[in-house]
Amino acid sequence: MSHLNSLNNYFTEKRETHLDELKHFLRIPSISSLSEHKNDMQKGAEWLAESCIKAGLENVIIDKTNGHPVVYADWLHADDKPTILVYGHYDVQPVDPLNLWESEPFEPEVRDNKLFARGASDDKGQVFMHVKAVEALLQTEGSLPVNVKFLIEGEEEIGSPNLEAYIEENKEKLAADVIVISDTGMQGPGQPAVCYGLRGLCGVQIDVKGAKGDLHSGLYGGGVQNSIHALVSVLDSFRDAEGTIQVEGFYENVRPLLDEEREAYKALGFDEEDLKKEVGVEELFGEKGYSHLERVWARPTLEVNGVFGGFSGEGIKTVLPSEAGAKITCRLVPDQDPDEIVAKLKAHIEKNKPTGVTVTVTEFDKGKPFITPFDHPAIQAAGRSYEKVYNVPTAYTRGGGSIPIVAAFDEILGLPVVLMGFGLSSENFHAPNEHFHLENFDQGLRVIGDYYYELADLTKEQLKK
Amino acid sequence: MSHLNSLNNYFTEKRETHLDELKHFLRIPSISSLSEHKNDMQKGAEWLAESCIKAGLENVIIDKTNGHPVVYADWLHADDKPTILVYGHYDVQPVDPLNLWESEPFEPEVRDNKLFARGASDDKGQVFMHVKAVEALLQTEGSLPVNVKFLIEGEEEIGSPNLEAYIEENKEKLAADVIVISDTGMQGPGQPAVCYGLRGLCGVQIDVKGAKGDLHSGLYGGGVQNSIHALVSVLDSFRDAEGTIQVEGFYENVRPLLDEEREAYKALGFDEEDLKKEVGVEELFGEKGYSHLERVWARPTLEVNGVFGGFSGEGIKTVLPSEAGAKITCRLVPDQDPDEIVAKLKAHIEKNKPTGVTVTVTEFDKGKPFITPFDHPAIQAAGRSYEKVYNVPTAYTRGGGSIPIVAAFDEILGLPVVLMGFGLSSENFHAPNEHFHLENFDQGLRVIGDYYYELADLTKEQLKK
Repeated sequence: MSHLNSLNNYFTEKRETHLDELKHFLRIPSISSLSEHKNDMQKGAEWLAESCIKAGLENVIIDKTNGHPVVYADWLHADDKPTILVYGHYDVQPVDPLNLWESEPFEPEVRDNKLFARGASDDKGQVFMHVKAVEALLQTEGSLPVNVKFLIEGEEEIGSPNLEAYIEENKEKLAADVIVISDTGMQGPGQPAVCYGLRGLCGVQIDVKGAKGDLHSGLYGGGVQNSIHALVSVLDSFRDAEGTIQVEGFYENVRPLLDEEREAYKALGFDEEDLKKEVGVEELFGEKGYSHLERVWARPTLEVNGVFGGFSGEGIKTVLPSEAGAKITCRLVPDQDPDEIVAKLKAHIEKNKPTGVTVTVTEFDKGKPFITPFDHPAIQAAGRSYEKVYNVPTAYTRGGGSIPIVAAFDEILGLPVVLMGFGLSSENFHAPNEHFHLENFDQGLRVIGDYYYELADLTKEQLKK
Repeated sequence: MSHLNSLNNYFTEKRETHLDELKHFLRIPSISSLSEHKNDMQKGAEWLAESCIKAGLENVIIDKTNGHPVVYADWLHADDKPTILVYGHYDVQPVDPLNLWESEPFEPEVRDNKLFARGASDDKGQVFMHVKAVEALLQTEGSLPVNVKFLIEGEEEIGSPNLEAYIEENKEKLAADVIVISDTGMQGPGQPAVCYGLRGLCGVQIDVKGAKGDLHSGLYGGGVQNSIHALVSVLDSFRDAEGTIQVEGFYENVRPLLDEEREAYKALGFDEEDLKKEVGVEELFGEKGYSHLERVWARPTLEVNGVFGGFSGEGIKTVLPSEAGAKITCRLVPDQDPDEIVAKLKAHIEKNKPTGVTVTVTEFDKGKPFITPFDHPAIQAAGRSYEKVYNVPTAYTRGGGSIPIVAAFDEILGLPVVLMGFGLSSENFHAPNEHFHLENFDQGLRVIGDYYYELADLTKEQLKK
């Protein structure tokens, strides 16, 4: 473990320098969604590129896209060793409402060993850690045990509209054996987590139309179909009373949980009582035979996100509504295909369509689910690196949400993706007073450095997905 | 039929005088809902009271209520003969949007034998006809064949908030054998109708609350109950696919249609194809085994009037909504009781309440259904009077809507109510360009006059409900 000792010494010695550098990075208000910050986006990319050069990375380039630029850098001198593609983003969320910030969002401040600034955790802080891990190894060991490529974009907070095209066009350049992303959270304070799967997303809007206008419920009620009744009969047909989705073939391609996964989740000791208190419900609800974590990480959902129709003001209006609608989204898990699921939703709606109305279905944008198998060597190696530094067992988790760009990496490059994040869910990303716990900054630098060695012990063949 | 000849001569001779008088009445902007018209309400009551005195009615009084005054008048010299209580209203709806009126709403104008003005049809014109019918009989015959009481209120268009109390307090004074109201419509041009029943109304708002706030559908979806799913499962439980209401005991007290009623409705030759075109639907929808008219006149309904919850803006928001709600109303028929039905709705909701949410039920105002039996002599007599003047068979109808004050008359005074209207549904009551077809003004005066003779042929015993 000599490299860990070297890293330890290096990061200890350089801590203030590194923090000062990170503060420079955080002072650049690189808000991708606001056009008045276009120049700041360029400045953010330039600062990062210079930092990469300083770290010893090569072929550093600020690559244009149709939106904000991408920063690419590499170090490719570890012959025959695996290549790691590090993805992250240098853009940040807007800062409104400004009055709720205790210190200026773009004037970083350390309080109570936490670094407060927009982007401290999401994702500038974590991107910076990867750059510094490379720097540390090059400075202390003279070389890296693996090949490394950096791809840091400036549009993650606006949905990465140009990144898929960029990856497609630069497939060769981005060729690697594993993708590492530090943009997710740990399981809790002192509790590291490797996230190896995310849910996908698809959805439809259902619009029901009956009579050409609203009708008087006295004059027509009982004789003309009511669009809300028609709609709710469709909506209610989607799930049974226990929450099991009734769309034919919905669960067909769902990859069953491995026994090892279920055990790993169980080992997390997730407290369902705490969850009830947190969200304010008397009882949880979901598919029978699954724990809460299993439900939100590894089981697909169908949720009505919104419903509307008729009169919703105060009091009563005896209208027989002409129109009603609902928005529905599904969270998908491997190996469900969003296109197939939308087709099944449509077939279900067609089959359950009530008489007396017309029903229109409109698709929303789709995102595929992603999984790197739980027992994949790159996943288990990440867990080991965490354990060496944090001295506790690593949590192996999935995410219930969807990060479309992760699925795109998975899809286009066909590589295992390792989500090894250092943030905490309490750190207010996307909100006022975003901050980053510096103990995870410190420990994370060491974890990343170690992970390069762990990956170097694996063959390219072993890393294949 | 000598009285019909006399009436005919009288009304022909006086037509221009009567129209001029009615125009005076219509020039008073007696809009009950607008406080700036408070003085006009008083003027309207005064004009009407003077008109009653001029007609030969006695004991004319403008009676105070907690709102706008009531005009009472009577003629009670037909010893041992039945007493008719005529109810109507001298208040009118507001006139917005004014720019859609082709002539001033309070400057009556005759075009194409139609009298255009706010209140021409609803209800000043029809109240005026009753006054003039009395006047005509007193002028031509010297007396009335029956006793008559007038109760004309000034708050019908704002829901008669003070009339129930007034009736309760004046039960003795208002004692009668039959109530006659001309505030409904004919079945069509040249097609007179006696309406002998109306549906009642009750309803509830259902509010569903799950988690204490909206949740991210990725982080919680599949593990916490979704309020919209909970709501739609309740809503969908109310009716089956054919529209039959599934609330236990809902149909229990529904008075079955008489064979005579079904035949009478059938005889109306109602064209369901025309209705489809009118409302713009491919097919009608409702309880099996009933025609459209039977469904809307004689069968109860349960309609969702509005539904709301979650995100209803453009596009997608992957929220797991905390709250959702719906407004439901039932149209009731004899002998359903609104209180009982609300209790049954509540029991049904309780029984079908999904887990994981709290459900709150709030009652709306209730109105009882009303019916004067189809074969009641006062109903059949009204039909005969129409037939003598219009020379076509009278339609015996019910109304699908609810007029709470009619049910209150039925309830408090326990008398048969005869709805003999002279309006047409095309006459824009409550809308710009309200008008009244003067052929129905002319023929209606004769029908009302004749009806007094028809009623005089009946004993008080026969008129008992």
